[in-house]
Amino acid sequence: MKIGIVGLGLIGGSIGLGLVRQLNVKVIGVDQNPQHCDEAIRLGLVHEIMQLDEVVRDADLIVLAIPVDGIEQLLPSILDNISDRTVVTDVGSTKANICTAVKNHPNRERYVASHPLAGTEFSGPSAALEGLYNGKKNIICEMERSSKEAIDLVKRVFSSLGMVNDYMTADAHDRHLAYVSHLSHISSFTLSLTVLDIEKDEDQIFNLASTGFASTVRLAKSSPQTWAPIFSKNKDHLSKALGQYIDRLQEFKSALDKDNRNASVALMEEANSIKRILKKG
Amino acid sequence: MKIGIVGLGLIGGSIGLGLVRQLNVKVIGVDQNPQHCDEAIRLGLVHEIMQLDEVVRDADLIVLAIPVDGIEQLLPSILDNISDRTVVTDVGSTKANICTAVKNHPNRERYVASHPLAGTEFSGPSAALEGLYNGKKNIICEMERSSKEAIDLVKRVFSSLGMVNDYMTADAHDRHLAYVSHLSHISSFTLSLTVLDIEKDEDQIFNLASTGFASTVRLAKSSPQTWAPIFSKNKDHLSKALGQYIDRLQEFKSALDKDNRNASVALMEEANSIKRILKKG
Repeated sequence: MKIGIVGLGLIGGSIGLGLVRQLNVKVIGVDQNPQHCDEAIRLGLVHEIMQLDEVVRDADLIVLAIPVDGIEQLLPSILDNISDRTVVTDVGSTKANICTAVKNHPNRERYVASHPLAGTEFSGPSAALEGLYNGKKNIICEMERSSKEAIDLVKRVFSSLGMVNDYMTADAHDRHLAYVSHLSHISSFTLSLTVLDIEKDEDQIFNLASTGFASTVRLAKSSPQTWAPIFSKNKDHLSKALGQYIDRLQEFKSALDKDNRNASVALMEEANSIKRILKKG
Repeated sequence: MKIGIVGLGLIGGSIGLGLVRQLNVKVIGVDQNPQHCDEAIRLGLVHEIMQLDEVVRDADLIVLAIPVDGIEQLLPSILDNISDRTVVTDVGSTKANICTAVKNHPNRERYVASHPLAGTEFSGPSAALEGLYNGKKNIICEMERSSKEAIDLVKRVFSSLGMVNDYMTADAHDRHLAYVSHLSHISSFTLSLTVLDIEKDEDQIFNLASTGFASTVRLAKSSPQTWAPIFSKNKDHLSKALGQYIDRLQEFKSALDKDNRNASVALMEEANSIKRILKKG
């Protein structure tokens, strides 16, 4: 089976790493950045590098692992040109915009909208990790618009990386991700900005970077090139989530300013119940 | 050497774990909660349990590891009653309020204001961790108000746990900690509240709890009984930090609402520079 991976960063590269040693799989890499191509070969993320148009004609499966606005732009023309047996999937963190872009495409059923839920704060081919997807969820959206064959192939590929497949509407996906993933990133980016604003004495940031700060600020290291398009493409859900987050912070600040200990304890006790919910995992 | 630890939770218990196996050290535990005393003995965090007044008369060093308002209340009466050779230290996350409470105490020089920078989101004796302090910083405040002997003893004890001692004014400590630690906790508690508000379908929180969310929300599991007094005792610095955090979030929200990609990229690129600073560690 020939699998073309378009975009050889953390996400695409880690998929490559999980596929290259599988029997009967040939992994072809595509990336606009020649340095990323060289790195991907050197790190063994893919077997070989090709141009996009060659892969589109030749692959059994094409995996789009580029920023979400790039996927939205590129996907229709890829579906225009695929061979009879080619299936296309993507790994973008937003799904409604991408599904809308190909809603009426004659080859829509050859496309499967996916989002494997895994990542780190690092980026580029050198950030690719063996086992990144193992034990994680892959969300498939608008399953009813894809052919059974296409769905089966994509599920098999993600299962071979150790993932469990799950299903959701594109809108439900984007709404949930706004709260659980995208808002986390904004809260972390902004925590970094706030601390940088004040702690002009940079050595003190390091001195005081106890484990608490390190984990809440971890996502602030993430790539702006990846995240700006995600935030933009999911801006309605995300703006709502961010507005509610700000309201809740104001509530906390008001309890603090009034030195209302009962109110702040009540907020924290409510927040504690995330324990019970995360434990289900 | 007899060391009394008052408060056998995560922090006091972990200090006990680091001391009980040292030669010629006898670790005495004190806790108002009889169940914590039993657990501390069973888990080997201390050699024996005593009443506070016995320890005050008898110990070479007393370590106060209770919530910061409790330390502020208890410390003056402990200094009233210590023996000639007893030194007292504390491990509270705020320092100005505690230092102020004993500013004019005749035994002020027998007290050393400390803050070992380490912890987890868990609490109670069963959360005590071997090696929790290893390689971390201990901040000593108002060093000039303690006797050389008292400082030397406290430094030796924290060094024996693998810590590096550092020095700061109480006000500088509280201001830095407001930004780096206390604000992180509020951002995490509030992220949990916001996600809980929306994600009424609790299964989805677990499904979508990718690694990003898990790390930013980790501190939301922390104990309200520990953190409410910290926030209250540091409310001036913390309210300022929280106000600036809210302003920066509004700035992010405005970039999002206007779909101003350049502005959001600029914010993220600035936030990224936390990488460079954390790397110093």
